[in-house]
Amino acid sequence: MLIKHLRPSVKKILCNMGTYKEFRPIVTTKIVNMDQFRIERDTFGDIKVPADKYYGANTARSLIHFAIGDKNEQMPLPIIKAFGILKKAAAKVNKTYGLDEEKANSIIQASEEVIDMKIDVVNFPLSIWQTGSGTQTNMNVNEVIGNRATELLGGALGSKIINPNDHVNMSQSSNDTFPTAMHIAVALELKEKLFPQLNNLLESLNKKSEEFSNLIKIGRTHMQDAVPMTLGQEFSAFSQQIKFSIDRLNSTLPRLYLLAIGGTAVGTGLNTRVGFDEKCCKEISILTGLEFRSAENKFEALATHDTLVEVSGALNTLAVSMTKIANDIRLLSSGPRCGLGEISIPENEPGSSIMPGKVNPTQCEAMTMVGAQVMGNHVAVTIGGSNGHLQLNVYKPLIVSNVLRSIRLLSDSIRSFNDHCVKGITVNQGRLEFYTKESLMLVTALNSKIGYEKAAQIAKKAFKENTTLKEAAIQLGYVSSEQFDAWVRPEEMLSPK
Amino acid sequence: MLIKHLRPSVKKILCNMGTYKEFRPIVTTKIVNMDQFRIERDTFGDIKVPADKYYGANTARSLIHFAIGDKNEQMPLPIIKAFGILKKAAAKVNKTYGLDEEKANSIIQASEEVIDMKIDVVNFPLSIWQTGSGTQTNMNVNEVIGNRATELLGGALGSKIINPNDHVNMSQSSNDTFPTAMHIAVALELKEKLFPQLNNLLESLNKKSEEFSNLIKIGRTHMQDAVPMTLGQEFSAFSQQIKFSIDRLNSTLPRLYLLAIGGTAVGTGLNTRVGFDEKCCKEISILTGLEFRSAENKFEALATHDTLVEVSGALNTLAVSMTKIANDIRLLSSGPRCGLGEISIPENEPGSSIMPGKVNPTQCEAMTMVGAQVMGNHVAVTIGGSNGHLQLNVYKPLIVSNVLRSIRLLSDSIRSFNDHCVKGITVNQGRLEFYTKESLMLVTALNSKIGYEKAAQIAKKAFKENTTLKEAAIQLGYVSSEQFDAWVRPEEMLSPK
Amino acid sequence: MLIKHLRPSVKKILCNMGTYKEFRPIVTTKIVNMDQFRIERDTFGDIKVPADKYYGANTARSLIHFAIGDKNEQMPLPIIKAFGILKKAAAKVNKTYGLDEEKANSIIQASEEVIDMKIDVVNFPLSIWQTGSGTQTNMNVNEVIGNRATELLGGALGSKIINPNDHVNMSQSSNDTFPTAMHIAVALELKEKLFPQLNNLLESLNKKSEEFSNLIKIGRTHMQDAVPMTLGQEFSAFSQQIKFSIDRLNSTLPRLYLLAIGGTAVGTGLNTRVGFDEKCCKEISILTGLEFRSAENKFEALATHDTLVEVSGALNTLAVSMTKIANDIRLLSSGPRCGLGEISIPENEPGSSIMPGKVNPTQCEAMTMVGAQVMGNHVAVTIGGSNGHLQLNVYKPLIVSNVLRSIRLLSDSIRSFNDHCVKGITVNQGRLEFYTKESLMLVTALNSKIGYEKAAQIAKKAFKENTTLKEAAIQLGYVSSEQFDAWVRPEEMLSPK
Amino acid sequence: MLIKHLRPSVKKILCNMGTYKEFRPIVTTKIVNMDQFRIERDTFGDIKVPADKYYGANTARSLIHFAIGDKNEQMPLPIIKAFGILKKAAAKVNKTYGLDEEKANSIIQASEEVIDMKIDVVNFPLSIWQTGSGTQTNMNVNEVIGNRATELLGGALGSKIINPNDHVNMSQSSNDTFPTAMHIAVALELKEKLFPQLNNLLESLNKKSEEFSNLIKIGRTHMQDAVPMTLGQEFSAFSQQIKFSIDRLNSTLPRLYLLAIGGTAVGTGLNTRVGFDEKCCKEISILTGLEFRSAENKFEALATHDTLVEVSGALNTLAVSMTKIANDIRLLSSGPRCGLGEISIPENEPGSSIMPGKVNPTQCEAMTMVGAQVMGNHVAVTIGGSNGHLQLNVYKPLIVSNVLRSIRLLSDSIRSFNDHCVKGITVNQGRLEFYTKESLMLVTALNSKIGYEKAAQIAKKAFKENTTLKEAAIQLGYVSSEQFDAWVRPEEMLSPK
Repeated sequence: MLIKHLRPSVKKILCNMGTYKEFRPIVTTKIVNMDQFRIERDTFGDIKVPADKYYGANTARSLIHFAIGDKNEQMPLPIIKAFGILKKAAAKVNKTYGLDEEKANSIIQASEEVIDMKIDVVNFPLSIWQTGSGTQTNMNVNEVIGNRATELLGGALGSKIINPNDHVNMSQSSNDTFPTAMHIAVALELKEKLFPQLNNLLESLNKKSEEFSNLIKIGRTHMQDAVPMTLGQEFSAFSQQIKFSIDRLNSTLPRLYLLAIGGTAVGTGLNTRVGFDEKCCKEISILTGLEFRSAENKFEALATHDTLVEVSGALNTLAVSMTKIANDIRLLSSGPRCGLGEISIPENEPGSSIMPGKVNPTQCEAMTMVGAQVMGNHVAVTIGGSNGHLQLNVYKPLIVSNVLRSIRLLSDSIRSFNDHCVKGITVNQGRLEFYTKESLMLVTALNSKIGYEKAAQIAKKAFKENTTLKEAAIQLGYVSSEQFDAWVRPEEMLSPK
Repeated sequence: MLIKHLRPSVKKILCNMGTYKEFRPIVTTKIVNMDQFRIERDTFGDIKVPADKYYGANTARSLIHFAIGDKNEQMPLPIIKAFGILKKAAAKVNKTYGLDEEKANSIIQASEEVIDMKIDVVNFPLSIWQTGSGTQTNMNVNEVIGNRATELLGGALGSKIINPNDHVNMSQSSNDTFPTAMHIAVALELKEKLFPQLNNLLESLNKKSEEFSNLIKIGRTHMQDAVPMTLGQEFSAFSQQIKFSIDRLNSTLPRLYLLAIGGTAVGTGLNTRVGFDEKCCKEISILTGLEFRSAENKFEALATHDTLVEVSGALNTLAVSMTKIANDIRLLSSGPRCGLGEISIPENEPGSSIMPGKVNPTQCEAMTMVGAQVMGNHVAVTIGGSNGHLQLNVYKPLIVSNVLRSIRLLSDSIRSFNDHCVKGITVNQGRLEFYTKESLMLVTALNSKIGYEKAAQIAKKAFKENTTLKEAAIQLGYVSSEQFDAWVRPEEMLSPK
Repeated sequence: MLIKHLRPSVKKILCNMGTYKEFRPIVTTKIVNMDQFRIERDTFGDIKVPADKYYGANTARSLIHFAIGDKNEQMPLPIIKAFGILKKAAAKVNKTYGLDEEKANSIIQASEEVIDMKIDVVNFPLSIWQTGSGTQTNMNVNEVIGNRATELLGGALGSKIINPNDHVNMSQSSNDTFPTAMHIAVALELKEKLFPQLNNLLESLNKKSEEFSNLIKIGRTHMQDAVPMTLGQEFSAFSQQIKFSIDRLNSTLPRLYLLAIGGTAVGTGLNTRVGFDEKCCKEISILTGLEFRSAENKFEALATHDTLVEVSGALNTLAVSMTKIANDIRLLSSGPRCGLGEISIPENEPGSSIMPGKVNPTQCEAMTMVGAQVMGNHVAVTIGGSNGHLQLNVYKPLIVSNVLRSIRLLSDSIRSFNDHCVKGITVNQGRLEFYTKESLMLVTALNSKIGYEKAAQIAKKAFKENTTLKEAAIQLGYVSSEQFDAWVRPEEMLSPK
Repeated sequence: MLIKHLRPSVKKILCNMGTYKEFRPIVTTKIVNMDQFRIERDTFGDIKVPADKYYGANTARSLIHFAIGDKNEQMPLPIIKAFGILKKAAAKVNKTYGLDEEKANSIIQASEEVIDMKIDVVNFPLSIWQTGSGTQTNMNVNEVIGNRATELLGGALGSKIINPNDHVNMSQSSNDTFPTAMHIAVALELKEKLFPQLNNLLESLNKKSEEFSNLIKIGRTHMQDAVPMTLGQEFSAFSQQIKFSIDRLNSTLPRLYLLAIGGTAVGTGLNTRVGFDEKCCKEISILTGLEFRSAENKFEALATHDTLVEVSGALNTLAVSMTKIANDIRLLSSGPRCGLGEISIPENEPGSSIMPGKVNPTQCEAMTMVGAQVMGNHVAVTIGGSNGHLQLNVYKPLIVSNVLRSIRLLSDSIRSFNDHCVKGITVNQGRLEFYTKESLMLVTALNSKIGYEKAAQIAKKAFKENTTLKEAAIQLGYVSSEQFDAWVRPEEMLSPK
């Protein structure tokens, strides 16, 4: 049995259970011995659990059966936090339906510790790659909150004064809590991580667009020289992309704010109470500051995650936008001598130990790599979203982990790209002017003065003989030097007449 | 030179131009000889064009240089139609800016013939796989309208009384017309093809949901037996998916209704007039009945197609929804003897010549194949959308052809799926009842009467001995037959209490 | 009932059957009236079929129930041709198992007419979007061959002297014939279309690489100036990519050459004869010149299309290669004045009516659009491939149509790209030399002469003061003009020492 | 400045550098104060580095500029290990080209510690989302090995007795080392992780196929009842898929074994020595036991990663195979009462606290989620692979991290799926027999005895009246009970005659 590619927390447990013969901790130096375990039980019987962990039997079993991936593959923390919010809200509502006040309060306190990440993350060790309903993570949270609440009430871990099923999971099922946590986590991450960075980037781009509003340059279509424009106009396209990106994400929120809670096992709401769903949504809205509402149709909310496919689609479009922006900045800053070289980007690290001025567009590279990843994540989400069966989509951890990863990567890379690249962009005005003067396309301005035929002759001569338009025009005797300067003015070519 | 994989129309031209030695027409029996050509010219010089075609030199050159794919790979007709609308609108507006009234009117009439498809489609033979700006299709339309308008004014084809560039393309550039045509075409196809079919399907699903509202069945999660629900509830999830799909598509329209027209070559609007853009959009709105507006930022509108990536994302989400619905109907109708067999779908064709009752879910199969295609198309659109450079995205024909294909395939397959499958679904009530009775999950109802422990014993005994719950319950002596019937009632398990 | 989005051939039939009220033929002017129909029948009963078509009842029913997409969405012709090959082979083999010789020969002759496309393609009108097993296309071919063979024997169409099921489909099932036709069609298209074009492109690239082997230029990494190389070296990377592409496609052939024929309905070979499979494969190999073999495991061959997913993966990698090559050529030819401008590509069409020298890289654009499409197609194939159930994958038409489209588009666009772009590439030697001289990276050569520190000072000074390396070196007094010329020699920097 | 979403290691550094105002360590309790830093320098000047870390200035700068993602987004360890192998090999070869023996040996020893993971992973903290060339990771490894080797020689960290550039990176460039490390890492992971699991799964499937070889069951096509087969035959299709998967992966190895080392900056091999490349490949082959060879064309090896796109394609095909297998097992084990229920899978955890027998197919769910992820990863790799520019593809970390993640997830989930699901599959023979008897398709056997017409009547009657075939046959008077039993024998329908 290959053991070396298990994550340490799993190895530790497996080893102590006698499943594996050898165990050599890699990161931690803490020696765990048999005394450091307690017995937890579920309907399958007894199982050993590390004494210093809050989780119970369900979590322990999942660690054995889903040793897939290392620690990088653990269920994302925003899901754990969202569960904390949900469990707190449910406990408050359950009080109104008869849950003992002291018990409810202990659950609420333990949930708050989950939300605030006061409970160490090692208590939430499960892999993304578990049951597709996320049941094991729901139980993991139930067990941790249950044991911590039990502890708060003075009980021993495992004594189940607060029962993970009966109390923490009261009126709930994995099938409605996990989708609820998915929506809460994604909505919070959008609000707290992505929207602020989009706003920051938009501000930077607007500033640059304004700063560059008088700098005339040559436009390029098909990667070929075209007619003039301003650098400010070029950057305004980037601004517009970000403005629309924000609109696109906002347009998904009405559906993202709908929560499945109250649907329990299949959407009927069996074993829950009339009104439980709406009260929970109200509490969750208060806790998050977001306008969550109870999903009108709970069957759809359990059996599909079309709305997360939709959100992923908006992130995919943002990835497309950021790829375009980063690619353009990479192109415009190419050089320093043998590229376009119209703008300069901040030099953040040595590009090369021997070539000064070799500023690699590393922020653009990170940004476009993230773009490609988000597009790939979107395909995974799409495939997972399309493969639900009957009353339950069982690709939930796949879907939410990809959406959360896309949000996180976009947020961080946009912040990095903005702070370490966009804000520091400067202009090589000489280059802008040189290219503008060089471009044969300016001949367009002579059409109305000397006619298209003669203008075309000038351009062709200049191209063939590798001279300037002005030289060609004068040599051909069609215009004087003064006339050329008066008529060929890029600054007059920037807008409709 | 391999000739056999060219499309006939291309071969015909190439052959008569002497580019290819041999030519054997496959489909048409019309013999084209040298007398049937006329000479057209552009800045590259003279070129022969079939005498009976309206197109000119640009189109003829494109046929030579982009012989990619057969007739299936031609630019979609909705784009041609959208160009007709745009050219008509532009001619009307250009009249107000000084275009000769007679000339303008001839353009308007020729454009209307394009819109109404009165001009044979063989006049629009260009491949999708041409220049990425769609310039050649813009010129194809300009040439056809120009020659037809010339003809209407009594001129000979090729005489350019109506000049494709100066008159038909007046104040326009391929770079702003092609994006404009993309938005018009997609918006019209959504309106005329997809939304009606979504509404029809929604109506059918609502009817089925209501019709089945009293039919109790066993729910299934993880593909395993779960608690009861009604078949109407199951179908209501499908309805909800379609309702949301309509909302999702609608939420893209504010951006889809923005048009690039007026941006000309790079977005500055060079060579156009102040107000041209807004007047055009107004005319286009009148012609289409859709609320198009001038894009505030034309640079974004030429350099990116983020909005079509967004629309494609909404279509991708719809494909996910339809895949789920079709898969569920396939599962529920599996059998007839050795599957779930809860519902029956219409028998449209012989499933097999010897096995009556073998009704293959062929409509589900077509629907899910279309779903997979739309997901693939979305990736193509995403890649094309992300690879624009500087002032122009040159994946325009790729992008729009995929979006239009997705709309068309979804529209047609949803209509087919609705008409030939959903509307005719019937219920095998005996199966529903049999499974509901069989399911061990009903034991849940006894929890509150005899306690969880005893209920679990009943279920375990029934499972182990392969008996009904009732038999097991009575044998164990925990309940009487009357009690069982009174307490275990699926119809009481369908909603919160 | 919306009729306008059906394809003409479908409308014509539907209309005449009385299914639809109105019918206005668009393309054809031929009036079809009730006399022009005959009655065909299947186990569902009688159905009218156009008198001039060879197909029968199964095809007619499919046209009604799968009116999805226009003519562009018809089953690709290479599949029809492959079926012709298969049916001919089967008839020959069936003779050895007792099929009447005259009957067999008539089937063989009719099959040859299908292979040679002598039977008009209007006889194969079915949509890709039909049953996922392709049964209707198998029956379409059986019916056409059956009726044509009947005709050859002097019988009336519909008289079934040659029965489509009993004779043409003898010892076969759609479930083994369609997968067989998929492999035959894909293998033939690779052989006849793609491999020749890859070999042609490879030859061109090798020639260019050799032709450019002495042209020194500056290399670029991260889109930034780097150390020197030759243009021939740059092109040799493209050659290598194509060489590997050919290897990659070849490495899929051992599995592509395995045929499902002989598996019949589920893979067991029920109703067929021992040896039938191998004899068929031998005949097919003779007919195609390819080394087909009977698949050892027929269950896998019906239930999965992993091998076509594999082939699609090789095409996806080729699309990646071609995208890189086309993008590089676009970049290197950007300009003419304001881009890199190191090479020039053929001017195939007017880039702009007023700007000579504006040569848009339109072949690169078509090539990269095709690349994006193939990547999208691959996702569709992947999704379809992964969703088979139990004994049959029912995404067959989706899978094969995408693979065939990818092959066709790659073949045609590579031919076009090679003929109209690569072959005509010329070099702007002045640019190559200018950039090579300009590049600060040449300073590397001084490291071993004056030490890294001083070399770095030279480069920094040149960059800061915008001078040449030589000027900076002399000004700093570290080297003489003669020394600089002797030591800084790009031609010495092109290989290991 | 938002700080909370940085990973702890980054925060710690940033905070101590004064870049950020506040810092609250979450996981580690170790307090780092100013005394615990040393100064490292590069061409950008001085920078503080944590005193207990081996890395230097380049790594420290990257941590500041690429704070993208949390610890889950760190460069995968197999890349670090591959770099260890490469650096060891290079040092050995450099000895033959004049590198001081003592220095070389210290590098070799430090490299071995990297390979054996004796150097704590916290020394390799860089994000995947850095420069697209992976330069910063190459420098990270150079710095760690350099400082550790310096330490081994008795020097102080930062004293550069062993210089990261001059000694550790001797004759190398990031541009050739990173691609080399990519190939080494992927090849090793395939060999050590994936191939063993594929072989294990193949063995299990072969065993099951043999074990089930006499169990007759009903086949299903289109999810509908079809003709009989054995369960062993059904499992043999799974075996065949795995056999082919192994072949597919093997067929990529000839290209994966080609290494870029020796190409240095752009592929020319500038600053390296003739023979260096081949000697390095030989050493690497010895260290890994794999047959690596020097890539003939280094330009291709730096500028493209087509081969990793190819490998990713093989993994994508494997994901397709595994999805099919897991889906089928999920379907066959659906129930226990209201599904197909033909096989039972191991009960690894409570499916539900109240319903015994509810065994959720959780291993199938993890497996299919991994499948979807791998398909998404493949799209990311494809996009990254297609976007290289000129002499360098700068999506290297994206590409390799996705390929490695796909290998890891497939390896682990296949092991889990095999150990916890496939190996424990048992058969519900009663179900198999029941369905086989029920299926109307058995009537096929009567065709040759009483003719097709009468057989069809029997089947139709049985279906309509919901009786068995035998009952219908006898009632119709076509066969006697004895005849039916003698003639209708599923066991005779399992192969060709």
